[in-house]
Amino acid sequence: MASVNKRYVLSKRPVGLPDEGTWTLATPEIPTVGEGQILVQQHYISLDPAMRGWMNDVRSYIPPVAIGEVMRAGTVGQVIAANNHPKFKVGDYVTGWGGVQQYSLSDGKGYYTVDPKLAPLPAYIGTFGMPGMTAYFGILEVGKIKEGETVLVSGAAGAVGSVVGQIAKIKGCRVVGIAGGATKCTYLVEELGFDAAIDYKDTNTSIHKAIKNTCPDGVDVYFDNVGGAILDAALTRINRHARIVICGAISQYNNTTAIKGPSNYLSLLVNRARMEGMVVLDYAPRYKEAAQQMGLWAMQGKLKSKEDIYEGIENFHATFLRLFSGEKMGKLVLGVLE
Amino acid sequence: MASVNKRYVLSKRPVGLPDEGTWTLATPEIPTVGEGQILVQQHYISLDPAMRGWMNDVRSYIPPVAIGEVMRAGTVGQVIAANNHPKFKVGDYVTGWGGVQQYSLSDGKGYYTVDPKLAPLPAYIGTFGMPGMTAYFGILEVGKIKEGETVLVSGAAGAVGSVVGQIAKIKGCRVVGIAGGATKCTYLVEELGFDAAIDYKDTNTSIHKAIKNTCPDGVDVYFDNVGGAILDAALTRINRHARIVICGAISQYNNTTAIKGPSNYLSLLVNRARMEGMVVLDYAPRYKEAAQQMGLWAMQGKLKSKEDIYEGIENFHATFLRLFSGEKMGKLVLGVLE
Repeated sequence: MASVNKRYVLSKRPVGLPDEGTWTLATPEIPTVGEGQILVQQHYISLDPAMRGWMNDVRSYIPPVAIGEVMRAGTVGQVIAANNHPKFKVGDYVTGWGGVQQYSLSDGKGYYTVDPKLAPLPAYIGTFGMPGMTAYFGILEVGKIKEGETVLVSGAAGAVGSVVGQIAKIKGCRVVGIAGGATKCTYLVEELGFDAAIDYKDTNTSIHKAIKNTCPDGVDVYFDNVGGAILDAALTRINRHARIVICGAISQYNNTTAIKGPSNYLSLLVNRARMEGMVVLDYAPRYKEAAQQMGLWAMQGKLKSKEDIYEGIENFHATFLRLFSGEKMGKLVLGVLE
Repeated sequence: MASVNKRYVLSKRPVGLPDEGTWTLATPEIPTVGEGQILVQQHYISLDPAMRGWMNDVRSYIPPVAIGEVMRAGTVGQVIAANNHPKFKVGDYVTGWGGVQQYSLSDGKGYYTVDPKLAPLPAYIGTFGMPGMTAYFGILEVGKIKEGETVLVSGAAGAVGSVVGQIAKIKGCRVVGIAGGATKCTYLVEELGFDAAIDYKDTNTSIHKAIKNTCPDGVDVYFDNVGGAILDAALTRINRHARIVICGAISQYNNTTAIKGPSNYLSLLVNRARMEGMVVLDYAPRYKEAAQQMGLWAMQGKLKSKEDIYEGIENFHATFLRLFSGEKMGKLVLGVLE
């Protein structure tokens, strides 16, 4: 066990893409547990696009990370000390909001035990964690997919999108994924069973035309992780009574100018369609139900997980940027165990 | 009775605001009725923002008006000839899609009889016509207003908006209207009983700040007739689980550049809110139910109609432009009886 707790604290609010000066690597001593507390040694930290939003000083669904505070992040690790905690004991594997640090002191609030025998630890911050929950409730509860419908998903090779597409396939939909690069597109079709994939970086075909080609019967549900030009193109191909699930807008998170609103939003009127936002935290009371269902699908071989794991907490900044460059495949995870 | 049928046919597709050359005044002879047909002498023509959309050669909820075709419009008038028609007889007052002309030949499809003793004829193309139906189903079925909620409506002094606001008041909501000019704002509050009104032309207060001031508890339902900057401002003030009804976007209909998409659409995500389009034609099977309910409210003095009537079919073009300049009060109607 190390003698210090390496952690990244937010040192300034970034404008555009965060630079290295956005955070400071701090190395305080590893804390000792007080009465009713636990100390979690983190194994993996979840890197998610939503983290970028938490860094802005704006009203949102949760308060922004304060300057000087440890960067907020989901984590999975092991309890290494506990002082009369009613729920957790030393040795428990737990997932929660540990932040970008190696050791997290907590009263246990927001932590859940996980079983490393059922799934590898990183899966608990991926398919069985927030991204998986987001996919599950987003496509089922907000998207309200029905058998035989055409489902289009952007960010399709990512942590959320890949699960969205697989669930839609399980439910009998025709599924088309949008991702950047031929490798990801091949992965979607050949590994995950998508019906078709669109490489938005392919300059030979416009995204608009590619959607038309791959969704000849139009789009019934569009699950959007990216916003921008892709959302606009999808809006031109929606069917009557289509549902657009607004889960994120990664193309816009580092804008230094105003966010690009969907110019084609009047397609909602023409098609009597709906665009609806969702925040996974609202479904917390039902996480267990979703995890059980997804675990069953995973055991049946219907739901595959892919984590892209980079090692070393010192590589946090560089690894975080992969979210926005797209240089990753599946769920982005940082291993921080030393 | 005149010897010719003055009518406006679409002669070209306008770019931006229609100019006089957009239409041609034609004066064919008044047609004679064939077997199973009726001839309707129109008294009033409905001028609606939606007409601008029908002039564009784009896929929409109904086909565009063809070049050389009589401009599509709702009408109310009287049957002056009928040849073995199963449903209508001479003398009946009827409303339907008569177009911008004085005499309309029809097989009767889409026409409904109206009773001039129950309401003045212009009301049948206003509060008891398409605008009223749009308001009724839009605010109740799509907006799903609940007692005690705050309802914000743009284009509030218009044919649709004024009815939306009054229905929301009847249902126990707090209602704020957005309109252009002090006269309209005073009308909304003093005549129609709105709780507050925002003059978007008032340069002393930004629309954003005005919404904040008049909706201190946020906006639960925003009924949008205008789009553009006002939609964007409204999005910053919506509450959790808010509903935004997309009924129109009059600020964008004459654009010669791309439509301005709502830059703040990610407020839908943060607030788990919904933006949904509606087309009144979908509710045709329920028009009668709505008309009965609104007729009752009108008799009880809870629902007021205001038509702004201009006379003379030759004034069609100039009167039509009032939709976009805002130089009108209530439902815009053209009287065409000679």
